[in-house]
Amino acid sequence: MKIENMETFIVEKDNPELKNSILIEGLPGVGLVGKIAVDYMISELKAKKLADLYSPYMPHQALIKRKSEVELIKNEFYYYRGKKDIIFLAGEAQAVDIFGHYEITSKILDYIEKYDVQDIFTLGGFATKEGGKRIFGAVTDPKIVKKYEKLNITFMKEGSIVGAAGLLLGMGRLKGLKGVCLLGECPGYLVAPKAAKAILEVITKILGIKMNFEKLDERVKKTEEFLENIKLLETTEDKNIKEDYIG
Amino acid sequence: MKIENMETFIVEKDNPELKNSILIEGLPGVGLVGKIAVDYMISELKAKKLADLYSPYMPHQALIKRKSEVELIKNEFYYYRGKKDIIFLAGEAQAVDIFGHYEITSKILDYIEKYDVQDIFTLGGFATKEGGKRIFGAVTDPKIVKKYEKLNITFMKEGSIVGAAGLLLGMGRLKGLKGVCLLGECPGYLVAPKAAKAILEVITKILGIKMNFEKLDERVKKTEEFLENIKLLETTEDKNIKEDYIG
Amino acid sequence: MKIENMETFIVEKDNPELKNSILIEGLPGVGLVGKIAVDYMISELKAKKLADLYSPYMPHQALIKRKSEVELIKNEFYYYRGKKDIIFLAGEAQAVDIFGHYEITSKILDYIEKYDVQDIFTLGGFATKEGGKRIFGAVTDPKIVKKYEKLNITFMKEGSIVGAAGLLLGMGRLKGLKGVCLLGECPGYLVAPKAAKAILEVITKILGIKMNFEKLDERVKKTEEFLENIKLLETTEDKNIKEDYIG
Amino acid sequence: MKIENMETFIVEKDNPELKNSILIEGLPGVGLVGKIAVDYMISELKAKKLADLYSPYMPHQALIKRKSEVELIKNEFYYYRGKKDIIFLAGEAQAVDIFGHYEITSKILDYIEKYDVQDIFTLGGFATKEGGKRIFGAVTDPKIVKKYEKLNITFMKEGSIVGAAGLLLGMGRLKGLKGVCLLGECPGYLVAPKAAKAILEVITKILGIKMNFEKLDERVKKTEEFLENIKLLETTEDKNIKEDYIG
Repeated sequence: MKIENMETFIVEKDNPELKNSILIEGLPGVGLVGKIAVDYMISELKAKKLADLYSPYMPHQALIKRKSEVELIKNEFYYYRGKKDIIFLAGEAQAVDIFGHYEITSKILDYIEKYDVQDIFTLGGFATKEGGKRIFGAVTDPKIVKKYEKLNITFMKEGSIVGAAGLLLGMGRLKGLKGVCLLGECPGYLVAPKAAKAILEVITKILGIKMNFEKLDERVKKTEEFLENIKLLETTEDKNIKEDYIG
Repeated sequence: MKIENMETFIVEKDNPELKNSILIEGLPGVGLVGKIAVDYMISELKAKKLADLYSPYMPHQALIKRKSEVELIKNEFYYYRGKKDIIFLAGEAQAVDIFGHYEITSKILDYIEKYDVQDIFTLGGFATKEGGKRIFGAVTDPKIVKKYEKLNITFMKEGSIVGAAGLLLGMGRLKGLKGVCLLGECPGYLVAPKAAKAILEVITKILGIKMNFEKLDERVKKTEEFLENIKLLETTEDKNIKEDYIG
Repeated sequence: MKIENMETFIVEKDNPELKNSILIEGLPGVGLVGKIAVDYMISELKAKKLADLYSPYMPHQALIKRKSEVELIKNEFYYYRGKKDIIFLAGEAQAVDIFGHYEITSKILDYIEKYDVQDIFTLGGFATKEGGKRIFGAVTDPKIVKKYEKLNITFMKEGSIVGAAGLLLGMGRLKGLKGVCLLGECPGYLVAPKAAKAILEVITKILGIKMNFEKLDERVKKTEEFLENIKLLETTEDKNIKEDYIG
Repeated sequence: MKIENMETFIVEKDNPELKNSILIEGLPGVGLVGKIAVDYMISELKAKKLADLYSPYMPHQALIKRKSEVELIKNEFYYYRGKKDIIFLAGEAQAVDIFGHYEITSKILDYIEKYDVQDIFTLGGFATKEGGKRIFGAVTDPKIVKKYEKLNITFMKEGSIVGAAGLLLGMGRLKGLKGVCLLGECPGYLVAPKAAKAILEVITKILGIKMNFEKLDERVKKTEEFLENIKLLETTEDKNIKEDYIG
């Protein structure tokens, strides 16, 4: 491999025949919602590795893995053959700068062309003060809103989607692809497996996939216990502080 | 559409025959003066969409529009056929960095060549402490100053024009184009439809275009009411504060 | 002119025959020493315009000149035929980022090749606490130090030269050019025409050029009067402050 | 030399025949551990200059050396022929931004291909609060861990390696190269020759090289004396402060 001009490049690991497939993106972002959701699907569906994406617009680090082996920070493609062939886009980071976001997105869209991708789902979190359970949505084509109107998605009428989740739809649309962005409501200051589960419930319904949520439920439980402990701690600390002041 | 090397690109939507046309730029800037002016002209003249410009030097966001559909942040070209054929350059953002400003400007100038553009008007705001009603001007060629001397434009003798309004003239001049920059005086801390109207009055006179300012006048009125309310509020607050101190 | 890929470009204005010529650089930097020196030489020697250099790594502004005409921020080449043919490099700014510094320097060195440049002088300021009258020097080849040992130059043994003055020598050296950097000692917080004069006295001696310093002496005088006034002001203020404290 | 497109470039100084050689990198980083180690090996083994690497992603400075001559900041390759042919990568700086890190690393890996490099050692420091004497390690291939298990290296199971030490292994791995990163434990806030020596003891053992550590021991001693003096100073100051408070 000779890297003449340093730019984003993709190393293919498999070359399956996929038809009329869909891309589901879940890179790190608000509450890690998209990443948790897509990593969970890959694991539960036993999706296979398709390719790795490396980029000079990713952090300049090699991550150390469990067997002490290092690997460049990367994004990964996995594929799954079902009623619908699915390509998953997962990874450890998004681009470090604006140009990089555009470059990586354009490489991704060029790459998936050969797998006949027609639809894109981008997943993420949406931080609200209330931190409720809503699923927010946005689409590449208003017709799609109608298609999903029974799914209890709150389709947004303004705002913007920053990063991969937005650019994949925005640039994908220019290439004639259809797409939906699903954002799980979350408090924003914490990893949010609950929002990830809410999204998975919607997307598995859309795709007609059955999924076991046991492991994810455990993670949700742990996060909530952690939150409870923090609240307890805060209450106790508040008391102490009060007593300090009273005393 | 295959994006080999990520750079600014233009998606054409129409291909009219335009001759000896002029370009009028109004991208977001000080007081949104240029944007308000150009968006108003596009709307009032019912200008037609010519092309969209996308760039990896624009914010890495997809904007959500009214029907929940997403679109990459972009610049837009519109055209209008009249005594003079006009191409409008409007949009949601300017470049995010210095290199991007130069790249986008050079792509714009290359693109409009085929429409035989000879003259460029770049519109914007100029924040002064006084916040008066002057129109400031600068040109690509001193002869142009004479041509417009009856129009009550304050031609500047020093200073600089930052961003698209400056680069389009500066780079355009290198390509043999003639151009004028018109900057409406404004306070700078607020959207300034009044300054936009002042500019439109000058430019419609230059171009021999009749324009109905009713809708813009409404917007000016609203902004001024808003300002009045703020002043009232401030006065009341000032009183309260005084009373607090007195008391 | 079609700008396919935005990069630094040079617009030639003349094409004289120059032989065995030298390049003298004086771009804005510490105390504006280099800029004042080179601008003065260009003016006194009535040097002719050779070329303009534009770059997407210069500030994204168009400067407004005396007749209200705008021009992109640029660097300029002038030439002068004497005992030695000289090319001057002057301008309004240096690159805005590190890559730009390298790119612009490499374009300059490529461009001057056809004028058979063998020697480079880069001029600038060197801020010291003492703010004395020394001329600091550095060279591309230790032999040059000997050549100039009677000129009362303090040749530095460590440190670094940042920006154009350093890169032109460093990259020039790689291309087989010989060069000297001359830095006039100055306080750093002020424009320093005195340091510029000190440098000009050295460089005109080296080049065997007679130069009238009348206009520069006036500027030096004005700067010193300005400084005196500030000192007076400070003394008066100090007194007031003291009296305030005493009183 | 014509620099058409400014990018990282390598100027070759020699062209030896090297076979099945290894690359040892020691660029500036935490505690300067890697740089001290590799500079010491180059000096002790009397390694010969192989090439210089320049880059627009290095600081935009020319360094002034002992004879007043300036040189662009650069990285340097040296080579040594022994039981194993070795190429050393030393230098004055690492890339100034993320893209530059990737670009320079890819140029290095392309360049060394012709010297049949199979193995890479990247050396550096690892700052811990304890500041102990451990050597931390990471590898491109878990099998390598076993090979070195008797060398008392603490192989890491998580974390990341930032900069050249990480990217050379990460990108090297993609090209089929094997590699080890060795990081000497150090306090982080000081140049750490002791950690450099610890690493050299390991790497010379791996390579079967005998090395005289006298000069490095002197440097270690000086650093420790310096540290002792600071501690004494701090103790004295602490006393003074106490006495101040007591008094």
